[in-house]
Amino acid sequence: MTTAFEFVEVVGVSTKSVEDAVQNAVRHVSATRGVSWFEIVSIRGRIVEPSRETEYQVTVKFGCRV
Amino acid sequence: MTTAFEFVEVVGVSTKSVEDAVQNAVRHVSATRGVSWFEIVSIRGRIVEPSRETEYQVTVKFGCRV
Amino acid sequence: MTTAFEFVEVVGVSTKSVEDAVQNAVRHVSATRGVSWFEIVSIRGRIVEPSRETEYQVTVKFGCRV
Amino acid sequence: MTTAFEFVEVVGVSTKSVEDAVQNAVRHVSATRGVSWFEIVSIRGRIVEPSRETEYQVTVKFGCRV
Amino acid sequence: MTTAFEFVEVVGVSTKSVEDAVQNAVRHVSATRGVSWFEIVSIRGRIVEPSRETEYQVTVKFGCRV
Amino acid sequence: MTTAFEFVEVVGVSTKSVEDAVQNAVRHVSATRGVSWFEIVSIRGRIVEPSRETEYQVTVKFGCRV
Amino acid sequence: MTTAFEFVEVVGVSTKSVEDAVQNAVRHVSATRGVSWFEIVSIRGRIVEPSRETEYQVTVKFGCRV
Amino acid sequence: MTTAFEFVEVVGVSTKSVEDAVQNAVRHVSATRGVSWFEIVSIRGRIVEPSRETEYQVTVKFGCRV
Amino acid sequence: MTTAFEFVEVVGVSTKSVEDAVQNAVRHVSATRGVSWFEIVSIRGRIVEPSRETEYQVTVKFGCRV
Amino acid sequence: MTTAFEFVEVVGVSTKSVEDAVQNAVRHVSATRGVSWFEIVSIRGRIVEPSRETEYQVTVKFGCRV
Amino acid sequence: MTTAFEFVEVVGVSTKSVEDAVQNAVRHVSATRGVSWFEIVSIRGRIVEPSRETEYQVTVKFGCRV
Amino acid sequence: MTTAFEFVEVVGVSTKSVEDAVQNAVRHVSATRGVSWFEIVSIRGRIVEPSRETEYQVTVKFGCRV
Repeated sequence: MTTAFEFVEVVGVSTKSVEDAVQNAVRHVSATRGVSWFEIVSIRGRIVEPSRETEYQVTVKFGCRV
Repeated sequence: MTTAFEFVEVVGVSTKSVEDAVQNAVRHVSATRGVSWFEIVSIRGRIVEPSRETEYQVTVKFGCRV
Repeated sequence: MTTAFEFVEVVGVSTKSVEDAVQNAVRHVSATRGVSWFEIVSIRGRIVEPSRETEYQVTVKFGCRV
Repeated sequence: MTTAFEFVEVVGVSTKSVEDAVQNAVRHVSATRGVSWFEIVSIRGRIVEPSRETEYQVTVKFGCRV
Repeated sequence: MTTAFEFVEVVGVSTKSVEDAVQNAVRHVSATRGVSWFEIVSIRGRIVEPSRETEYQVTVKFGCRV
Repeated sequence: MTTAFEFVEVVGVSTKSVEDAVQNAVRHVSATRGVSWFEIVSIRGRIVEPSRETEYQVTVKFGCRV
Repeated sequence: MTTAFEFVEVVGVSTKSVEDAVQNAVRHVSATRGVSWFEIVSIRGRIVEPSRETEYQVTVKFGCRV
Repeated sequence: MTTAFEFVEVVGVSTKSVEDAVQNAVRHVSATRGVSWFEIVSIRGRIVEPSRETEYQVTVKFGCRV
Repeated sequence: MTTAFEFVEVVGVSTKSVEDAVQNAVRHVSATRGVSWFEIVSIRGRIVEPSRETEYQVTVKFGCRV
Repeated sequence: MTTAFEFVEVVGVSTKSVEDAVQNAVRHVSATRGVSWFEIVSIRGRIVEPSRETEYQVTVKFGCRV
Repeated sequence: MTTAFEFVEVVGVSTKSVEDAVQNAVRHVSATRGVSWFEIVSIRGRIVEPSRETEYQVTVKFGCRV
Repeated sequence: MTTAFEFVEVVGVSTKSVEDAVQNAVRHVSATRGVSWFEIVSIRGRIVEPSRETEYQVTVKFGCRV
């Protein structure tokens, strides 16, 4: 039985959607760790100039096998 | 005039999107109650094996006519 | 000895006062359950048209004997 | 695939320990529902007279299959 | 160097998606102010009658150049 | 369909009651904006000298049509 | 100039109204200290048996001159 | 009828268990005041050197008769 | 007697100190409104390139006479 | 071994800086109690008339040996 | 003098007790870092099938020497 | 475009000021990572014996390029 998991908190960024930003965060963490579950902590963003697209910055907290 | 509403808290699940998970929660609650409004309480998730899809688990609090 | 209580969360509505909205919530819950204690979770409201009265919507969390 | 879970919030009571109070809450909810997971929301208590034992009142939020 | 930014809090509404509701809020604020960044504060909604569409009401807090 | 609402946060003051302080806040905001709904954010106060009356200072957040 | 104030947290109880419960808390603290300001922290209550009156228990945090 | 209760916040310390730390806090407060109820506010701790025991520091908020 | 105050939330920026950032926020708000009191909501910052100075971004909520 | 610490919550006031306000709070509490540690709970303030200085009111929670 | 500590957030798991789950988290972190202090962030759990034991998942935040 | 940032939470310590404690945290994190932004999470402290200086322990959350 696994008796401990470690948390990693990452910001995923995307100009497409909240879900795409989460995917970027998942991809980053999965490259070096085994992701068990996650929780969205906050959804922030900004207006990118000069294209005026909306960039989503989604903070995601991951529970990882260690 | 209605003088009271009751809250129900439900987790909707979907591998498509946050909105689809909310729809599954709405569908579940609407089957037995009249939904007046709702609020997203938290957005959690996990990586489904072996397809490696992202499953969204969205906790939604519903205000229902009673 | 009672070893468990169940929570019910209800919105009481009134155009008179916060206390009257709580009474409406108490009346609703007491009809089907034994109320032991409660806590006010939030006080919201709206302006009713065309009378322009203030309607209080008080969310109350009840601890009930089960 | 299950697409929805429902939350139930219960207070478990015990004069033995926090874990025993959680067990009483689990026992109460399991009698009528399938418990998937839970979270401790608050740990309160009081001094029982005349024995002067400490009674723990643990509020537990359960995610249940529906 | 800019030494001060002002916050504006707006609810964007949409029956399409959370992102579309954010776009409506961005559009409203951008009409009169220069948006620097934003944060989603809450995601609420209701069921629109008689179409039974889900309407998203997303509260967004904007940091604006002043 | 209205696609955006703006928030205004105001402190209403009264030595009579919490409800009267809310009315003073409603009156102030309604003079220049269309109030749709509100939420009480905090209830503070002080003892007025030399009358020793209790003054209620109720912070209210208003959602307004824009 | 006063350079320090001390906080005292008290529960005022009343079967009449929230404001009357606050008055009972003010009266208690004022007997031994100089109250400068206060904030309502929570509003709880219970149903008194056998009269079935609603008893309000209002937790108030006082800033006092020391 | 008692119309006011006062809060006291205390940290109980123990290397045995969370419940034993609560008992130490109860014993300290009961020596000078009548405890009516309590709530655990936070559970912190440290590793004691050189024994490497875990010391629990449990912050408990007490409601006391005054 | 003033019966209403309005809140304004502003970010003050400075590379000197938290207090200097608050001063910049005060200066901005005072130019157009009468400030009665304020509260620091959050203290954020960034490392300015290429000087590598620390820039403080202090969010301040102001209560203003209206 | 000390098995209990008591909390005291104090507002320190200063027109110089946040740290000077903390010092005033430390000085006040140390006069009658042994301070072990502290935490800043909130930083509020006001504009003093007619000097227009900024007065900081820093709420500090102290853990004290008892 | 040490001028910086780093936080690590870990979930300890146990079917025995909350304290045993904390011990598993301490053991995991101590293997690679020097633990100075910790705080329990949340206590969650699930019912293990088919034994129907209660598994505690305790999230602990550790302050570590670096 | 960078699509992910990682959070690191560090306590900076100083007997001079809050800003100096933040600098110690920045120096520690910058030694091994590229800091993009930060947020102060809490300001705690203790009285150092026998000098009776105030030691500030500032918890800072850093967003880092990865």
